[in-house]
Parts: sequence; structure tokens; C-alpha cells
Amino acid sequence: MKVSELGEFGLIELLAQTISQNTDNKFSRRLILGIGDDTAAWHNESPVQLATTDTLVDGIHFTIETITWEELGWKSLAINVSDIAAMGGTPAYALVTLGIPGDSLVENVISFYRGMLEIANLSGVIIAGGDTVKSPIITITVSLFGIAENNGKGIMTRSAARPGDVIAVTGFLGSSAAGLKMLQKSLHLKEEAENYLRQAHFKPQPRVGEGKILAEAGVRCAIDLSDGLTGDMAHVCKASGVGAKITVDSIPVHPLVKASFPEDSIDFALSGGEDYELLFTIEESLLPKIKGSLSTPITAIGEITAEKPGQVVLIDKKGNSFARQRKSWDHFLSNTP
Amino acid sequence: MKVSELGEFGLIELLAQTISQNTDNKFSRRLILGIGDDTAAWHNESPVQLATTDTLVDGIHFTIETITWEELGWKSLAINVSDIAAMGGTPAYALVTLGIPGDSLVENVISFYRGMLEIANLSGVIIAGGDTVKSPIITITVSLFGIAENNGKGIMTRSAARPGDVIAVTGFLGSSAAGLKMLQKSLHLKEEAENYLRQAHFKPQPRVGEGKILAEAGVRCAIDLSDGLTGDMAHVCKASGVGAKITVDSIPVHPLVKASFPEDSIDFALSGGEDYELLFTIEESLLPKIKGSLSTPITAIGEITAEKPGQVVLIDKKGNSFARQRKSWDHFLSNTP
Repeated sequence: MKVSELGEFGLIELLAQTISQNTDNKFSRRLILGIGDDTAAWHNESPVQLATTDTLVDGIHFTIETITWEELGWKSLAINVSDIAAMGGTPAYALVTLGIPGDSLVENVISFYRGMLEIANLSGVIIAGGDTVKSPIITITVSLFGIAENNGKGIMTRSAARPGDVIAVTGFLGSSAAGLKMLQKSLHLKEEAENYLRQAHFKPQPRVGEGKILAEAGVRCAIDLSDGLTGDMAHVCKASGVGAKITVDSIPVHPLVKASFPEDSIDFALSGGEDYELLFTIEESLLPKIKGSLSTPITAIGEITAEKPGQVVLIDKKGNSFARQRKSWDHFLSNTP
Repeated sequence: MKVSELGEFGLIELLAQTISQNTDNKFSRRLILGIGDDTAAWHNESPVQLATTDTLVDGIHFTIETITWEELGWKSLAINVSDIAAMGGTPAYALVTLGIPGDSLVENVISFYRGMLEIANLSGVIIAGGDTVKSPIITITVSLFGIAENNGKGIMTRSAARPGDVIAVTGFLGSSAAGLKMLQKSLHLKEEAENYLRQAHFKPQPRVGEGKILAEAGVRCAIDLSDGLTGDMAHVCKASGVGAKITVDSIPVHPLVKASFPEDSIDFALSGGEDYELLFTIEESLLPKIKGSLSTPITAIGEITAEKPGQVVLIDKKGNSFARQRKSWDHFLSNTP
């Protein structure tokens, strides 16, 4: 059945049923009003609130020919959860707006919400409301509301990097860009590589648990890697008034990415974006304790400097300047690879 | 200059400057992080949160040929403020997502935010963050967070209508639809009428103060009129498990609408939508006190019934059935007039 046959209010009723499979947790128990009134409402016991929003547009941020509706639902929420993770916070309530053409199939919309519920339930997020609108192109905006731990005293920001701090990242970088390249070129790789790369690009794993542990361990500066390492590092440098020196050889790249794209993997890691790993800075003495308390790989990749504020300098293992092949991601500047 | 020449991050910096003209109030003073980090963050002292989101898409909800960018900014936020008003709450923080083509002019984007700041400052709303994305069509999603007064005890919902309640509305109905008709048909009316109708359609005035006074006076059931009187009344009837009987002749229509559209004005009032007035139900004995405490016109237009739950019955002043000309608004059902 097409959405245009069901109508907006029929669709809202159907979605309310789908979303009633929200997880049972403290946030669901504090929900006063979910879908179906003018606003959502919930009891809140945390004194510091976090709020973020991210949008995906068909043809710009994804193409509906390559992503499944379940993956689209997952990714739309995951990229917002990642923003809360970067603050060391706990994601709580999401508002979801889906813009779709009238001839969209209702089953696709349901699949979208099922994929979103999967990551919502894993992250403890309650889908509390939203909007479904007619649009000539598919567009999704999720707003996510979270709480800061420890009365907000431990929020990690972009502006707290200090000269001398070690720069470190969670997980592996460049996997999402490698997945995009595989899809764009319709490459056939080994099954293990194909599965890993597709998942890395379409179903990123937000680092909520890691973010909280980092904040508790004393990390004050973090950002999630959405625009690419050099771009996001530059955001931190500008916000903190510091420089950054990154040793390119130390950047963690997954073996399957190295094996599949031996020539491009460093470029993917530097500029690809959408890895949704955490980039953070910390006094060097605290790093061993952090590594010990996390099963996720933590890799030191450079150092914050007082020199060249706002700039990111790339060096190789001999300390020589490293030449970048392309810049960080900016949809408006039309630097699509 | 085009947005594609400035780039996403140049645009964000420029918008952060524009939005720094946020009003100074308790919410701005409680803001910890605004635009420029992974999330916004603020101190919150209210135990009950309200959250809503609404989207406008070019060609569906507006056409950029007829609305100015300032008006578009105003309307995008106003329709969300209206949802908070319908709960009797106080709007506080907005996240604004603007999707625009790369060849959009930067000055238009600035105008959009200026129009939004106008209503934000009037409503006490702080623009705390958002997202600017490339999109082949103009699309705006605003998410608005508010607080419930009185520890959430006075929230007005759609589900609290009781048989015997009087049905009442604030202001005049049908003015927005009359404005849309004037624009669609390029009608030339008297200047006073043109100004009134354009403002009614593009710059709706959310009833925040009225919503709070209604909630304080004991109103427990309210909705804002976005889909049209019959459609929104039906939402209340379904949510409350009651019926509604509306006397069509008692519906308040502005004299300029009656004079400009003598044949269509009742139809506009019943089905036009986008008036963003409040529809509420209340024990009859409490109505005089409410009327006395508001300068905004309050008009009783019908009665909640135990019969025909979920249904809205229209009658004329003699008590006879009134025949509707068209149904309430549903973009997906393609009932565009």
C-alpha cells in the first residue's frame, strides 16, 4: 500500500503501533506523553540537558538505491546518538521527522522505523514523537535529547584541548569511507570485507559507553568523527585555540580496509568522515588507565600544540610533513570524491 | 554570495553571529553550550519537559515564490511555539535545521534567521543549535523544547475532553486559509485586508500567554488549530473517546475574511487549517472567568457529547445538520483545494 492511500493520520497511527515496541527503561517509565499529542512530555531528573539534531537527504547524504530502509532508520538515529556520546552523555528521547513522497510504500516506512528501533533499543533511546510529511525527496531529521552525567560537571567539549595533551581515537578510522567507495564502484570483495564495510558505512556504532568512561576518567575534550579526522580535528583546534600534530602512520586503520584499499586507506582515514568514532585529548599520564578500562581499541595519534592555533599538521613517522590528498568533507563546497 | 561559495562551516560561523542576537532571559542565562559543539547544553530547573518538532517543505507547505525568507523563518518557529502553547507550557530552546540548494544566496539564509529571531525574541525562545544541509529543495525542521508549568500538573492534552464541556476557541478561524487563497489566486483586495490576510497566513501569532492562562484557569484539554477545526476537533474526540457538536454559525470569522470571501469564509474556518489558534474544552461555569482574564476573543462554538465518540457533528443555528464542503487537511491524501 502507498502512503498516499493510507493518509497522514493513518500513517501516524500505524507508526505509533510500531514505536510502541520502545524499550522498557527509566526513560520510557518517565514518559508522560508520546506520539499523539501536540508535544511529547516527560519527567526529567537531570539538571543539565543535551540536545542535538542531524539531517539526512536522499542524493546528498545517502542514495535510497544502495541503503536499505532498515539501515536508513538505524543510521538516522545513530549519528545523533554519536553526538550525545561525544559529550559523555546519555541519550534519552528522540523526535523523528520523515519526509517522503506520497507514492512511498507503507512497508518501507515501517522498515525504516524498525531499523531505528533496533539502535534505539540498544542505546536506551525512546522515540517520543515526530512528524511525517510529504516531500518530493526523502529527508530525515532526528532531534535527540539526552542528559549530562554528574550534574553536567563532566561534559566533554570541543574547546577544552590543552597544549601537551595526547590526541587519541576510539576504534578504526576510514572504514565508512571505504564502504562508500565499495558501494559507489560496485566492487566485489571477500564476503567478510563486504559485510564489515557495509556495516561500517550504514550501521555505525555510536560510542555511548566509551564516551561516559572517557568523561569519568577525566577527558574534557572530545568530538565525534563525522566530517573526517582532519576536519574534526580542526574544529577542536579552532574551538580550543590550539594546534594539532598528527602522526599519520599511527592512525588506526582496520586490516580489512588496508587489504581492500591499500592505496586509499590513509586518505579514507584522514578525510572520509562518518566513522562516528570519538576523537579526544587527554594528559598523557591518564591514557594507560583509559586503555585499561575499555575493550574498544584506543590509539594515540598525535599531540596538541601551542603553535599554529587552529591548524592541523600531519607528519610521517620520521617527523616529515605529510601531503594530504584531499580536504575534509563539506557538501556545500562540492568536493565530492 | 552563494552558500556553495561560503561552504558549510563558513555558513555556520555566520549564522552563529546572527543568532548571537538571541534575547537575554532566564533561558539564555541557563545556556551552557549553543551553536558550535556536538550538542547544545543547558541547565534545566523544571521537572517536566515538553518537546515538539514540525517541518515545512517547499512546494508542499509553502512556495518560496510567495513567502519572503523572513516570513519563512517566522512561520517555521511559530508553528512549533504554537504546539507548546497548546500544552500551556513555556517554549525555551530551539534546534533549527535548514536544507537548501548550494546556489542559495547567503543573504536569504540570513533573512530567514532574522525572521526566526523576531518571533524567538517575542516568545523568549533561544536558538541553541541546529544543522545546515545541502538539499535539492528547501526544507526546514525546527525542534522546540519547552517546560511545563506547575511541575507538569497543568498540562493540557487532547485526551481530557469530558461530555458536557463547552468547546471554545481563541481568536478568529479561517484567516490563514483566506490568505492562502488570496495568494494562490493573486487577488487584489483592499490594503487593510491584504495585510491582515498575508500576516494571518505567513506570520501566525502563537497563543503562549493565552495557553498558560487557560491552563491556570483549569482547562485540561486543548489543541492548536493546524489541520483545520473539524480535523483537530476529531483528533480531540478520538483521543478523549467523546463526540463533539459544533454550531457552525457561532464560529468566529474575522470581518475582513467575511467581507473578502463571503461564500468561502465558513469553509475556510472549518477546514482551512494553519490558524494556530487554541481549541479547548472546559466546564461551562468556568468560561466567564476565562473570558474576563484574556483580551484575546474567546468564543464558545459547541459542546462535547458522550454520543458518537470520535465524531464531529456540525449543526446550524436551528439545530439542523450542516453539510461540509471539504474535509480537513491531509497532504498525503492529495485533497489540495
